[in-house]
Amino acid sequence: MISGKNLIAGQWSAQGNETFVAVDPRMKAEGSVRFFNATDSEIDLAVRQAARAFKAMRPVTAAARAAFLESAADEIEKLGAELIETVDTETGLGRPRLEGERGRTTSQLRLFANLLRDGSFVEAIIDTAIPDRTPAPRPDIRRMLIPLGPVAVFGASNFPLAFSVGGGDTASAFAAGCPVIVKAHPGHPGTSELVARAILAAGEQHGYPPGFFSMVQGDTVRVGQTLVEHPQLEAVGFTGSLRGGRALFDTAARRPRPIPVFAEMGSLNPIVISPRALAVRGEDIAAGLVNSVTLGCGQFCTKPGLVFVVDDDASQTFIARVAELMDQRQPGVLLNEAVLARLSVDVERTYATGRVSEQTATDAVAPEGYSFPNTVFQTTAEQFIRDESLQDEHFGPVTMFVTCPTPDALFEAVESLHGNLTATVHSEPEESAFTSELFSRLREKAGRLIWNGFPTGVEVVYAMQHGGPYPATTAPQTTSVGLMAIKRFMRPVAFQDLPDALLPEALQDANPLNIWRVVDNQLTREPLHR
Amino acid sequence: MISGKNLIAGQWSAQGNETFVAVDPRMKAEGSVRFFNATDSEIDLAVRQAARAFKAMRPVTAAARAAFLESAADEIEKLGAELIETVDTETGLGRPRLEGERGRTTSQLRLFANLLRDGSFVEAIIDTAIPDRTPAPRPDIRRMLIPLGPVAVFGASNFPLAFSVGGGDTASAFAAGCPVIVKAHPGHPGTSELVARAILAAGEQHGYPPGFFSMVQGDTVRVGQTLVEHPQLEAVGFTGSLRGGRALFDTAARRPRPIPVFAEMGSLNPIVISPRALAVRGEDIAAGLVNSVTLGCGQFCTKPGLVFVVDDDASQTFIARVAELMDQRQPGVLLNEAVLARLSVDVERTYATGRVSEQTATDAVAPEGYSFPNTVFQTTAEQFIRDESLQDEHFGPVTMFVTCPTPDALFEAVESLHGNLTATVHSEPEESAFTSELFSRLREKAGRLIWNGFPTGVEVVYAMQHGGPYPATTAPQTTSVGLMAIKRFMRPVAFQDLPDALLPEALQDANPLNIWRVVDNQLTREPLHR
Repeated sequence: MISGKNLIAGQWSAQGNETFVAVDPRMKAEGSVRFFNATDSEIDLAVRQAARAFKAMRPVTAAARAAFLESAADEIEKLGAELIETVDTETGLGRPRLEGERGRTTSQLRLFANLLRDGSFVEAIIDTAIPDRTPAPRPDIRRMLIPLGPVAVFGASNFPLAFSVGGGDTASAFAAGCPVIVKAHPGHPGTSELVARAILAAGEQHGYPPGFFSMVQGDTVRVGQTLVEHPQLEAVGFTGSLRGGRALFDTAARRPRPIPVFAEMGSLNPIVISPRALAVRGEDIAAGLVNSVTLGCGQFCTKPGLVFVVDDDASQTFIARVAELMDQRQPGVLLNEAVLARLSVDVERTYATGRVSEQTATDAVAPEGYSFPNTVFQTTAEQFIRDESLQDEHFGPVTMFVTCPTPDALFEAVESLHGNLTATVHSEPEESAFTSELFSRLREKAGRLIWNGFPTGVEVVYAMQHGGPYPATTAPQTTSVGLMAIKRFMRPVAFQDLPDALLPEALQDANPLNIWRVVDNQLTREPLHR
Repeated sequence: MISGKNLIAGQWSAQGNETFVAVDPRMKAEGSVRFFNATDSEIDLAVRQAARAFKAMRPVTAAARAAFLESAADEIEKLGAELIETVDTETGLGRPRLEGERGRTTSQLRLFANLLRDGSFVEAIIDTAIPDRTPAPRPDIRRMLIPLGPVAVFGASNFPLAFSVGGGDTASAFAAGCPVIVKAHPGHPGTSELVARAILAAGEQHGYPPGFFSMVQGDTVRVGQTLVEHPQLEAVGFTGSLRGGRALFDTAARRPRPIPVFAEMGSLNPIVISPRALAVRGEDIAAGLVNSVTLGCGQFCTKPGLVFVVDDDASQTFIARVAELMDQRQPGVLLNEAVLARLSVDVERTYATGRVSEQTATDAVAPEGYSFPNTVFQTTAEQFIRDESLQDEHFGPVTMFVTCPTPDALFEAVESLHGNLTATVHSEPEESAFTSELFSRLREKAGRLIWNGFPTGVEVVYAMQHGGPYPATTAPQTTSVGLMAIKRFMRPVAFQDLPDALLPEALQDANPLNIWRVVDNQLTREPLHR
């Protein structure tokens, strides 16, 4: 049923002769379908057709895009058990997690539909004319957001549904009114093909032009680079490694006409645990921490990879307890061979610094699959500050404690952190001075601050900020999760003195869309009276 | 009175031995003051002190920043006649224009103050907790914008006040809560020193830490590059040439930690004139066009450098009339020798394509100063489409007509345009199909669309979009004029489950700032009841 082909503007295509297969990571077993790397000419056709489709899509209203997104969600659900079986075989992530992730994927498509129906996301701003101003009349100026154009979306290995072919980047780009070319992740190509079918079906139901969506397969760097270099591409969404994201960022920056790359990359997601919190609820925090570190076999972008504690007997007991729980936890299966290879190298490099000690005792791994022992490291604030390489991500079930001789040393260690997606503080209400001092430092280091929780589990809500200073992302001023993600794929245009009939509906006097607008500095839904 | 020194975090400093002088472009006369290029260690100190000041400035409220901006406007006004005389001598732009530009500069500082007092610019979004959600409770998530950190601002040659030391980039960065390091433009160093004094005085009045503001002088590439490479810098604002902006963009993208460069660069600002508009009000359009092309000696980023017409007798008569008016207009004085040299090279290169003819007849220039003849070129749609180099900017009193055999050929020529700051259509109300078709194409090419007006004259209002696709800017999703310019220097942070007392005021339950917030998907100023 799965063809192994690329979807190029409505046509299934396999012009090349480079192929690859999916691998079941639990058994290291190769699948039977051969997937065709997209050729340069297939990629070129996909982007050219996207640019053509973009023009044809100009008249599609936000309400019509909302209906399309809901159909896409419906079509993904209709894939039913075949989808869950395929993705489970390709990723080893397990049915319960994958059913949850499917729910998240379809619900975020529907949330964007709600945003589109509300309509105010275009940020309409109107400054009316002042004809009798001296020395010159003031013109009428109206501004709103319009879509950027063709967007490339790179699927992530670790979220085969929610951050891949029909995931958040695709949903927000479609919501903005942009065509999308997905570069599927080679770790789950069959899953990608199934979801691509669903999106294609939804597009056909709504009369979208064929180029609105393409999906290219590829297990080489060339496929992604060729896509990002295409002159008609306007933006890139990416979720993955620092190395991969930075390479695409560099490619896009070197283009004759640079384009933005919204890359969500590595993050250590530091957690600070106060002495008081350890004393009051150490056992709960230990259990929560181990759950968070091992969730999805540690392959979450928000996995806590650094834990800061003040060094004393209680924190040493706590670290030992966490190590014990990690030893007891059944080793998981990693997504693929490349993840295991990368993790092994990164852990080896950390050992080689001579600045860490290992707290976990067992080397147990899952017997047949790609697997790595659950691992807890420990280092000191002094070593941590001295050696930036201790801030390299371990993508897998690995975390590191940083013991700090005093609270001030802890503040200093936190100050040396690089950019992160999240930063968490566990403390008690009576420690508000400590907590406040920490958050005031951590807010410069992360996109989301959490109190007394864990960073894994990223809510898809309007207020979510899933981003952060480099190297967490290449675009700290944007989010890749939540409704504000749509802004990545839009840009403002101002209209000066246009007749009402030639203005987009969002800016017309009568406010036919009934949206919120800033009119002469006041937020209002009222029509203009003039 | 003018010292020639750099302002480094409150101290006037001249550690280097490279110097340069200002030049009066009307007389090619060198000034007597020697200005000191900032040394690497002066630049380093400026940025390090800015990073330190940023921490000290965290508690400064938006209302306090508003008061500071108003003081900065007051202090610039207090510079009085000395400022106008200095800038006129250094730029040759003339008193009336410079008095107008000063008014614009102080009024934009005050407009940002209003925005800060309103407070809603932080984009507060709140999603309240759902404790009984299954399978897991939903946390409380609240998001707002916070300042980025130290910002470098590059002064522009052509707007010595409104886009320079105390101009729009500086005003919006200060409004956001960022410290600023200005790289003064070497064309008007004395002006820069005076305005720096005014800003310093305002900062002192409001107890700002010394590092909140520095101003470095320099007539070498090194000064700017060293500044942009500094590891503690967070963003760059720039107004100037494509070559200069792209160089800074490339430098920033190559940093170990890339930072955004908001560069506003070259633009041709195409104008399309319909046959009907030519017939009805050709003489008015000719006069308006010549005014717009020669305003400030053609050294506006929004100068119309391309005019598309349908080729017929009427348009040939029109072109001849424009050339005649350009010949009659007294030649202006350019800003400096470098502008003249660049313009001469660029015009020579355009001649050398063999694809244009010159319509103006005189080679008259201002007798003693840096001056270039008012020049009108003509080419055809076919040549324009064939040779992209005809889209290189001529920064000076030069414009080019593109004659198109048919309206369809005109649409096709417009389709081949690169990115621009503005695009203008002159047409009559009964031509709405033609106009609508044009705007639908032009909106993909520009940041601001104008009907029956001229692009020079950029209103500083909430709705202004002064930006556009590359090469007009490196950041088409932002504006460098108008109130939304503040967003360039902020980034979102989400707070998850923080106690009310630890949240910024903008996100607290009671809404003490009385700002607009999106609470559970509804825009409201109401406090939260929980």
